[in-house]
Amino acid sequence: MQNIKIVGLDADDTLWVNEPHYRKAEHQMEVWLSEYSELENIRQKLFEIEMQNLPLYGYGGKAFTLSMIETALKLTDNKVPQELIAKIIDLGKALLDVEMELLDGVKETLYELSQRYKLILATKGDLLDQERKLKKSGLENCFHHIEVMSDKKTDNYRKLLTHLDIQPQEFIMVGNSLRSDILPVVELGAKAIHIPYHTTWIHEEVEVTSEQKKSFITLQNIRELLNVLN
Amino acid sequence: MQNIKIVGLDADDTLWVNEPHYRKAEHQMEVWLSEYSELENIRQKLFEIEMQNLPLYGYGGKAFTLSMIETALKLTDNKVPQELIAKIIDLGKALLDVEMELLDGVKETLYELSQRYKLILATKGDLLDQERKLKKSGLENCFHHIEVMSDKKTDNYRKLLTHLDIQPQEFIMVGNSLRSDILPVVELGAKAIHIPYHTTWIHEEVEVTSEQKKSFITLQNIRELLNVLN
Repeated sequence: MQNIKIVGLDADDTLWVNEPHYRKAEHQMEVWLSEYSELENIRQKLFEIEMQNLPLYGYGGKAFTLSMIETALKLTDNKVPQELIAKIIDLGKALLDVEMELLDGVKETLYELSQRYKLILATKGDLLDQERKLKKSGLENCFHHIEVMSDKKTDNYRKLLTHLDIQPQEFIMVGNSLRSDILPVVELGAKAIHIPYHTTWIHEEVEVTSEQKKSFITLQNIRELLNVLN
Repeated sequence: MQNIKIVGLDADDTLWVNEPHYRKAEHQMEVWLSEYSELENIRQKLFEIEMQNLPLYGYGGKAFTLSMIETALKLTDNKVPQELIAKIIDLGKALLDVEMELLDGVKETLYELSQRYKLILATKGDLLDQERKLKKSGLENCFHHIEVMSDKKTDNYRKLLTHLDIQPQEFIMVGNSLRSDILPVVELGAKAIHIPYHTTWIHEEVEVTSEQKKSFITLQNIRELLNVLN
């Protein structure tokens, strides 16, 4: 692709498995709290508390753990056994230290792509989290650096481009979230490639108009990047 | 100062009050837990748990909140009242949203300095935290961008310089922590200016040899930066 100076890649669920681990933790919490509340109610309360806390906590495993604890307290009117809170803390720690599972085609694609372009990892997770995952992934050498973003809205991408000292048309973003990786990038006049993943956090779901659909490329597997970014 | 291209500034306790808020929260927790344990024991246990969690959680308010909850559970053999855990969560939130208090001389110094140099905020706190504080401080326009570091060891600064695309001798770091802002920077061959703050987290304390003392400048007030970086 012409004029592209930097390729930004989302990390979680674009390069490696992430969301299923969160859903599994959520399910575990639902099982633990099942004697206090209906399953659907637990799930809804957790999401509600996560959304309330988002402006203050931001994204990532620590925020999720704190919101799980708060949910357990509020759902049970502070009657949740203290042992269960200790277990939630451990669940959160396990989530932060989960096994690395690269998605199909990532390794060979990134090695090849890093020969052609300057790659950056653009994530709204915790820097420490993402550094740890990147190390485990063995992909460290493919990336020039990690860009942590407090959110992935248009304004955050605008700041990112200023910081990288490039024009929108010199940047392309690759990721699994239409809401976070694609639409705000396209809005800036930069390019974007969507690679959907089977599990999406409800917060990341978004409606896309047919007009918007024409503004980005969709691929089924990351390997196809090598044909697009040739 | 000759050849300096970028001035890195630490944020917490260099530009604004931070550590005293953490000490105040810690003290509050000690009061709450005083019926379960000796004051000195509570403080020691919290520090021990913070240090155990550091590799996984990193720095910042969310990590501190989780460690406070874990301390309360462990110190009381899970007998801490659930209401108290809810209060610790609120204490942590208040810490994240604390009032901004700039240190003496910061505002006028940074405005002037940003006319002379490209300034970056180099912090190991949470990006969201620091963005919020920077916004509250009214200093946003003084900085080119925020650099979040997962830690402030020599290797992290090496990565930072690569990322900024500059040589060590083109970088100077300003901060209150000898351990995090000064010694690792000097070790890389970059320059460093120490501005001590009256309250230091025990984790940041470090012995400095007389040889090391010669390798950096110490100032009493940030205003003096304008004479050094002229």
